[in-house]
Order: sequence, then C-alpha cells, then structure tokens
Amino acid sequence: MGDEDQVVLLDFWGSMFGMRVRICLDEKGIKYEYKEQDLLDKGPLLLQMNPIHKKIPVLIHNGKPICESLIILHYIEEVWPHKAPLLPSDPYQRSQARFWADFIDNKVYGAGKKIWTTNGEEKEGGKRDLLEMLKLLEGELGEKDYFGGESFGFLDVSLVGFYSWFYAYETFGNMSIVAEFPNLIAWANRCLQRESVAKALPDGKKVYEFLVDVRKKWGIE
Amino acid sequence: MGDEDQVVLLDFWGSMFGMRVRICLDEKGIKYEYKEQDLLDKGPLLLQMNPIHKKIPVLIHNGKPICESLIILHYIEEVWPHKAPLLPSDPYQRSQARFWADFIDNKVYGAGKKIWTTNGEEKEGGKRDLLEMLKLLEGELGEKDYFGGESFGFLDVSLVGFYSWFYAYETFGNMSIVAEFPNLIAWANRCLQRESVAKALPDGKKVYEFLVDVRKKWGIE
Repeated sequence: MGDEDQVVLLDFWGSMFGMRVRICLDEKGIKYEYKEQDLLDKGPLLLQMNPIHKKIPVLIHNGKPICESLIILHYIEEVWPHKAPLLPSDPYQRSQARFWADFIDNKVYGAGKKIWTTNGEEKEGGKRDLLEMLKLLEGELGEKDYFGGESFGFLDVSLVGFYSWFYAYETFGNMSIVAEFPNLIAWANRCLQRESVAKALPDGKKVYEFLVDVRKKWGIE
Repeated sequence: MGDEDQVVLLDFWGSMFGMRVRICLDEKGIKYEYKEQDLLDKGPLLLQMNPIHKKIPVLIHNGKPICESLIILHYIEEVWPHKAPLLPSDPYQRSQARFWADFIDNKVYGAGKKIWTTNGEEKEGGKRDLLEMLKLLEGELGEKDYFGGESFGFLDVSLVGFYSWFYAYETFGNMSIVAEFPNLIAWANRCLQRESVAKALPDGKKVYEFLVDVRKKWGIE
C-alpha cells in the first residue's frame, strides 16, 4: 500500500474497541484521520458507513468501510503485514489468540456492562462473572510478559483497553480488581509503557465520569 | 501436514455450527473421526476440550482442541491452505465475509432461537428480526451464484447450515421463509448440489422433530 492511502477512523475516545484499532494503527505506523463520534447522537457518516450495527469503530480505507474491531485488526494485519505483526505465525497460537479475543467480546464486555448499567442481583452476577473471567485471563497470561509470549500482540491489543474501565467497574461495583489480579495489572502496566497504548487509553477517572453522565441520561440510579 | 495427522471432531448432527466444520473438512478432503455429542448430557471429553464454553463443535488436531466454529474454519484454512481455499484472497473481501459471518452468529442465530424457544411478543420479535436479517443477506448475495462470487466460500459455508433449520422456523413461527426469499433458496439449493453440503445438512423435518423434543424437555408449550 502506498502513501496515497486514505485512512479514516470513526471512533469514540472511551471505547475499548476503538482503542484496539488506534493501538494497532500506531504500532504499524499508519497515519490516519481520527473522527470522534457522538454515540448518543449518531451522525450521518457513521450511519452510512455502518448501517447494520451503527457502531464505532469503523475504519474507512480509501472510501471503503470495515466494521467490528477484531475484523478491523485482521484487515490491518492483512493489508499492512510487514510492520509489527500482531497475530502469532503458528496457526494453533493464532486460533488461541482469536479464541480469547472472542471470549473478551462475548463474555467479559457483557459482564462489565452489567456492573455499571444494572443493580441488585443482576449487578452482583456481573461482578461475579467479571472476576471469574479475569481469573481465566490471568491464568492464560501465566508467567509470560505478554499474552502472545515475549512480544506484544493480538490478544494484548484486544484486552488492554479494558484496563481503562477497571476504575469504573471497581467504583460502580464497589469491588476490588487491582488488588486481586497483580499479574494482570503488571501486564497492563507493561503494555502502558508502549507509546501506542499510553496514547490510546484514557484515564480511568475520565471513563468513570463519562459513565456517571450516561447513567444519569439513561435514568439509572 | 502429513498423513499422520489425527483429526477428531466433537459435534452434534443438528448444529449449524458443526455443519460448517464438516463441510469445510470435506471440501478440503481432510479425513477425520466424528464423535457425536449428547448436548443434554455433556460427556467428559467435551468438558475437557472446551472447558470455557462447553460447546460443540470442537476440532481436536493432534490432541490440541480448537473451539468456536468460525475460529475452526480459520484454523483449517491456515493449516491446509492449498486445497479449496475458502476465504477470498483480497483483504477487503475477506473483511466483508468475516463481517457477515459474525452477523450470522451474533444476530441471525439469536433471532431464530427466539422463534422456537419463546412465545408471544418475544417470538413475534424474533420472526420480524429473522425476516429483516434474511433480507439483508439476500441483498448481500445479490445476483451472484455464491456469496463470495463465482465460487463456494467462507460465507456460504457459514450460512448454509441454517437452511436445514428453515422448516423448523417456519413451523414453530407459523411463517413463510421459502416463498419470501427465492434467491436465497436458489442459492441454498445450489450449495446442496455439492457433496460436502448434501452430506452435512440433515433433513429439515428431522431438525424440527428434534426441537419438538427439546421443547418438551424444557417445558416450552
């Protein structure tokens, strides 16, 4: 791909899914135009580019939209394969990285959402589930520096944005994550030493304050 | 990969997710041992090989398990790339095939499930959603022979198993699918001319009768 490539990202600063794409683009040194989206009042470009799900992130490459963050990561990897490969080269390791990324999207995100959008038994269930899932992820990390082993890769990119939501989960859930998962927190801090990650992740308190506003708008006490 | 490869598939005859894997293995001419699983009484091998989700299909390649059907398709494609490539070679086309496969898993399956597991307004919502989604899929197919164009590929494999559930959706939902989507039905019949597909897909009435039994066990009237 040449210098004439036009890359646009429709995103929202607080989205852990958007963070994945920003980290990946930065790791690969791909220049792009960032277009912040208002998720409570979606604009015509987002609705045009992602008519099915109407969600960020959307990567627009030379006018053509790619939706869903994990699919975008695969696309970036396939179009710009040479710099900073994110997926392991071994097919079995690739399948495992994809398995856990899918687990994060289909399980971890939902458990976390229950913590800040529900109350009572549903919230307690979300807390229990999140802690169990983080335990599984910490087990998968094991003694490795990164999920992929010695180098920062696909699963690290897929998970690290959630770290910026831990403060909100802890505060809304009146629960402790940081103290319970020292290896996972050490891993997150290791990732944060990378410029791509430090740039993409907002401060946890900013995420929390944003969610306080959303809860007010949605009438959640 | 040599002849010494040991490939085992944990599956259930009626699963549209399992059908994907059987079709893909057959298209590539990969020999495997099929181990039917009882989903209402899960056995120790399934629980050991997929402790996180406890779901079929699981592909066990030389003793190592790969879970989640779309991830299994990617794995098979990467380990046995030469025969019958399923994913398009163009990265953008690949991203679109993945997008619609993800749509099938996260939207179409759930809408269909509402039709045979719920009643009243929830069931009606499932029916409306399924019809809308099939309309989107038929639009994506357009005038092409297959979703990928001229040849049978990833998205065809991902969707075709649902055809064997249409009779059940129609009967439980008291609705018409076959008459509403002539192009989609013509596509399904085109796919069924392939030995891999004809072998993998059960008769629609057999699926329906199985679901009648499940509903009885689950106490759904």
